[in-house]
Amino acid sequence: MATRRFTAPADFPEPAALDEFYGALAEADVQPLWAQQGLMPRTPPLRDVPALWKWKRLRALAERSGELVPIDRGGDRRVLAFANPGGGGLPYATSTLWGAVQYLGPGELAPAHHHTPGALRFVLEGSGVWTLVDSDPVAMNPGDLVLTPSWRWHEHHNPGTGPMLWFDGLDIPMVRAVDAVFFEDGPDRMTNRAVDTVSRAELRYAGAPGLLPLDDEPPAPHSPLLAYRRAETDRALTRLLAARGGPHAALRFADPTSGADVMPTLRCAMHRLLPGLRTPTTRRTGSSIWVAYSGAATAVVDGHRFDLEPGDVLAVPSWAPFDLAATEPTDLFSVSDAPVLEAMRLARTETLPAHQELR
Amino acid sequence: MATRRFTAPADFPEPAALDEFYGALAEADVQPLWAQQGLMPRTPPLRDVPALWKWKRLRALAERSGELVPIDRGGDRRVLAFANPGGGGLPYATSTLWGAVQYLGPGELAPAHHHTPGALRFVLEGSGVWTLVDSDPVAMNPGDLVLTPSWRWHEHHNPGTGPMLWFDGLDIPMVRAVDAVFFEDGPDRMTNRAVDTVSRAELRYAGAPGLLPLDDEPPAPHSPLLAYRRAETDRALTRLLAARGGPHAALRFADPTSGADVMPTLRCAMHRLLPGLRTPTTRRTGSSIWVAYSGAATAVVDGHRFDLEPGDVLAVPSWAPFDLAATEPTDLFSVSDAPVLEAMRLARTETLPAHQELR
Amino acid sequence: MATRRFTAPADFPEPAALDEFYGALAEADVQPLWAQQGLMPRTPPLRDVPALWKWKRLRALAERSGELVPIDRGGDRRVLAFANPGGGGLPYATSTLWGAVQYLGPGELAPAHHHTPGALRFVLEGSGVWTLVDSDPVAMNPGDLVLTPSWRWHEHHNPGTGPMLWFDGLDIPMVRAVDAVFFEDGPDRMTNRAVDTVSRAELRYAGAPGLLPLDDEPPAPHSPLLAYRRAETDRALTRLLAARGGPHAALRFADPTSGADVMPTLRCAMHRLLPGLRTPTTRRTGSSIWVAYSGAATAVVDGHRFDLEPGDVLAVPSWAPFDLAATEPTDLFSVSDAPVLEAMRLARTETLPAHQELR
Amino acid sequence: MATRRFTAPADFPEPAALDEFYGALAEADVQPLWAQQGLMPRTPPLRDVPALWKWKRLRALAERSGELVPIDRGGDRRVLAFANPGGGGLPYATSTLWGAVQYLGPGELAPAHHHTPGALRFVLEGSGVWTLVDSDPVAMNPGDLVLTPSWRWHEHHNPGTGPMLWFDGLDIPMVRAVDAVFFEDGPDRMTNRAVDTVSRAELRYAGAPGLLPLDDEPPAPHSPLLAYRRAETDRALTRLLAARGGPHAALRFADPTSGADVMPTLRCAMHRLLPGLRTPTTRRTGSSIWVAYSGAATAVVDGHRFDLEPGDVLAVPSWAPFDLAATEPTDLFSVSDAPVLEAMRLARTETLPAHQELR
Repeated sequence: MATRRFTAPADFPEPAALDEFYGALAEADVQPLWAQQGLMPRTPPLRDVPALWKWKRLRALAERSGELVPIDRGGDRRVLAFANPGGGGLPYATSTLWGAVQYLGPGELAPAHHHTPGALRFVLEGSGVWTLVDSDPVAMNPGDLVLTPSWRWHEHHNPGTGPMLWFDGLDIPMVRAVDAVFFEDGPDRMTNRAVDTVSRAELRYAGAPGLLPLDDEPPAPHSPLLAYRRAETDRALTRLLAARGGPHAALRFADPTSGADVMPTLRCAMHRLLPGLRTPTTRRTGSSIWVAYSGAATAVVDGHRFDLEPGDVLAVPSWAPFDLAATEPTDLFSVSDAPVLEAMRLARTETLPAHQELR
Repeated sequence: MATRRFTAPADFPEPAALDEFYGALAEADVQPLWAQQGLMPRTPPLRDVPALWKWKRLRALAERSGELVPIDRGGDRRVLAFANPGGGGLPYATSTLWGAVQYLGPGELAPAHHHTPGALRFVLEGSGVWTLVDSDPVAMNPGDLVLTPSWRWHEHHNPGTGPMLWFDGLDIPMVRAVDAVFFEDGPDRMTNRAVDTVSRAELRYAGAPGLLPLDDEPPAPHSPLLAYRRAETDRALTRLLAARGGPHAALRFADPTSGADVMPTLRCAMHRLLPGLRTPTTRRTGSSIWVAYSGAATAVVDGHRFDLEPGDVLAVPSWAPFDLAATEPTDLFSVSDAPVLEAMRLARTETLPAHQELR
Repeated sequence: MATRRFTAPADFPEPAALDEFYGALAEADVQPLWAQQGLMPRTPPLRDVPALWKWKRLRALAERSGELVPIDRGGDRRVLAFANPGGGGLPYATSTLWGAVQYLGPGELAPAHHHTPGALRFVLEGSGVWTLVDSDPVAMNPGDLVLTPSWRWHEHHNPGTGPMLWFDGLDIPMVRAVDAVFFEDGPDRMTNRAVDTVSRAELRYAGAPGLLPLDDEPPAPHSPLLAYRRAETDRALTRLLAARGGPHAALRFADPTSGADVMPTLRCAMHRLLPGLRTPTTRRTGSSIWVAYSGAATAVVDGHRFDLEPGDVLAVPSWAPFDLAATEPTDLFSVSDAPVLEAMRLARTETLPAHQELR
Repeated sequence: MATRRFTAPADFPEPAALDEFYGALAEADVQPLWAQQGLMPRTPPLRDVPALWKWKRLRALAERSGELVPIDRGGDRRVLAFANPGGGGLPYATSTLWGAVQYLGPGELAPAHHHTPGALRFVLEGSGVWTLVDSDPVAMNPGDLVLTPSWRWHEHHNPGTGPMLWFDGLDIPMVRAVDAVFFEDGPDRMTNRAVDTVSRAELRYAGAPGLLPLDDEPPAPHSPLLAYRRAETDRALTRLLAARGGPHAALRFADPTSGADVMPTLRCAMHRLLPGLRTPTTRRTGSSIWVAYSGAATAVVDGHRFDLEPGDVLAVPSWAPFDLAATEPTDLFSVSDAPVLEAMRLARTETLPAHQELR
């Protein structure tokens, strides 16, 4: 991919005058546009690289962290963040998205805090854990998507006997890019010890598709439905596949009161692929993280092939050619920055005329 | 309720001059504002009256119509429309809403047509009937709400052995008020004979609350979900009651892709009342029709008491004081013109300080 | 235009049984659909007729009303309303719009009131009159459009030496159709006697195109800009004609903070036609009133020809074919119900393949 | 400002085990949350510093660049970018905004290109220059704001006899943060040599406040009005000051068709301050650049005092306390990232109880 350069013309007559001028610029805290390299490339360069984290290895590291690292004030959470190998050492899965595996052992409590970055949890292993969102107890079980949106108090506790591991997706890089991170600790003790209950959020908003409280509360800047259950996602995918009559279906997790994305910064989706089709090679502005939930599939990103098994996590950079094929029926969860790209009117999609070749 | 009058002042000096002047006005097709009676009342006068149609009587009349009146081209539908006793002979349940009972006998087909008025069907009796909406087969069973929105082709057929009776709600008076009724016949033969299937609309949009096709079709001017099933409404009401912890819950039927009302002119809702509470006496601009689905309740409208049993239909005029109390657990369906009132910015609600008294 | 009829089939076997049945229906306040005439026509029938009111005659009648009729409490306004000859005696210019000429003599005060119908004033003759909107003094001069939106207090006073005549446009028929008219008297004395001032509304919102107060007040359900001045309309039309390079330009009066129509029920526009072009024959759902401001033009509505001179008022019914041609440079003001038709998703426009012929 | 740290607890029993574990994490491209420094601070830290660039010095450097550096393909533009002294050497005025001075000598042409970052020009010196936006010739004169929105072709040419200097504001850091920069060269030759004309954009959209083409084109993702003229801004500020009756008024440059900001990523405003008032000390998430146009004022940012004279440029970081006071009537232009902060629902404003003190 060619990179546009703003370069000084070759026929500058006086190198010494130029040197002096450049010195004066530097002293004045200004920089000449024509000396910038890669400020305005023809197409977005890959800042990150496509990358895969294998569940087997992640699982072992997470378990080891459970043995070695306590969770309490100061640490708050036992989280292993994906650091994109092309990301210059930053703890980000892609240039816009934070991804991590979180481990909560039996009997543990991750105490309450809130922060402006929005977070979602996609459960990979374990059951019977609770996330309290402003004290509303939201159950967590495998395949569930649970939201803890911006600035909502949240805490997690595990009253069971086994550990839980989940995928964390956050918008931290984007919130940091606009210098808007705020954070506060909540109380150290759990605010609601109820279990065996259904969250108020679900009682109000998960009754049935298209049924909303008649005299509703004022809209929130995020979905008021804080949990999307695996059984429902599974059923909806089955039905959507039937409607499409095809080997690929994808559902967007949405605010049931508005159809908007679950949070103003993050789009979540669940994809089902049946064997027999390779999706068209497509590239999009904005990045995404893909988490395999079940089945087996192959992704190709920018010419690199990745095999996806349950629990594996894949980072897809902005504008990287990307396609998928399943070798058995496969469910994949994805999170992207699409709402921000769309709000900035920078969303672009291009489907290539033929499948990309492997490098 | 006092009515404001624009009256001519008492001290007009020259009756003859005035008479001549009024004659000249009439000849010129102009009318003086000061001679208008009731053009601008202090509050909306009751144009319609509160009225109740009892199911027992309706049921018998509908059955008799099935014996006497065929459905075919020219008639198209076997429909008995509620005519508000205060409505000056017009076939409208209220000044803005058409309400009716429709009867479709076994083996009958109500052939395809479309019209700009939007329609909804709330099923009261019978099962196994199909409404085809642009050929998509939508099943009809008791307690279901089925939509045939503006200008969508629709036909009904009854492949079963018993009749079906449903409530029809339409926006005909409003569409006529703005002179925008269009109508066309479709083909005489059924466009899709499939039964034992799920509509494409439901496969796509009724998968689960908050789950939408990722790459959706462009939005329609109405809900793309064309059926809301009794079992789901029942479940959602149960959950909402649990969330509220109170004796009254109401769900609005909404477009799952936007949260908007099912049609741009009609708001539908399902109400559940438990015994022990009389709702506050409230009045609202815009009218509504209420259809009892189950249980037993008492409504008071403008001081008149009405007992509601399953299948009964109640018309509530604009700005009429209205409250409800259940004597056993009761489900009520309602349809109103609220979206139009809100679009015109004329929606007003007032809760009276005490319950209205009976006249 | 053929009208669809729901008629009873010819082969009804038992007239007596039918008669008895129809009697039972009438007793039960229900009406059979199949007996309705013209409920669902193929296209909207002309409820109103195209009609023209000539300024010369209106002017004389208005002046005479000034001699004969005082304005004070009880009457409030000296208004002559256009009554469409096809409208069954109702004082409405079209089935959805109220139009009138108002006359305010020198030294007169039309005292404060407010009502839910929204009103606009388009000034035809006179100068130096003031409309107070919630006490904000809005000057009135020929060619100005002045708004007194729904439920805003308004009063008019004429501190000058000559009378003023203006066109009133209101949404009364639509507000009555949904039973939402409210009215209240204000104080009898003028709330603000300031003259030689600019309204706060204009100081805030008429500074320059695209410039809005940075920390603005919450949006109103109508344009916060209450006056659109003739000089500005004239300049804007001149520029738009230059941009189009054509003989016809039209500007919509809009809320500068949102681009929405001036009121949720009414669309206003100013049209400039140069000689040499007959506009395409078009029909639209929804009705409009046209007020000639300057020049001379010919309108054809549903095959009838009308000559328009300054001050003339033309009613165009829903779905009536309509076109215009100027014989000299002509400015026309129009008001329509388009925002309501659009909110109800019933707006349709059709341009005929050739110009309509005269009847 | 305290920074929250995620630190490892002090009582880890086995440093060796930890070391080994950390090594395994690094190998797996994952990073522990508890080792992150400053990822989630209690409030946004100052990434940039408040900074002032004085016009006198900028003017001299820009003039020198005109002598030394040609503009042609490869360079395209003679631009000196503000590099925030706290920004780690990046050529950005703040962490989200690019700011620069551009110099176009007499007879020069800056050839056509387009890019996804959106740009605005606020003219500081010179006259009679033209920016072509998709070939529409937009005049540039002192105090004018001219837009070249995302992906619109633009070129500048100076047919006059003196140089022009303007302020450039772009969203480059934000577009880069989401990896969505695209760039293409246009033709080398000017696409439209017309001068002494008014842009089509202005003819259509700058006619008068609240007047829009009736049958408008589909909305663009930015204001279709591409120039806001100094004379109009001046007049609008005068009127707004009159309406407020106070010493401070600010106008937002808006899309006249929607009231939205001029671009989806940038908010522009013009502020007028009269002597005698120090504005309240306020801090906001998101950064801004302020350009003095006339008068003399003092800004205090995070306790640092800056004197503003015409042409001076001030960078205000996110969440930095900020206030202004004028010593003579002063006009200031500002550009900020507010639309992005609002779309992400991260906009926060806090007014301090008392003015900040100088450090």
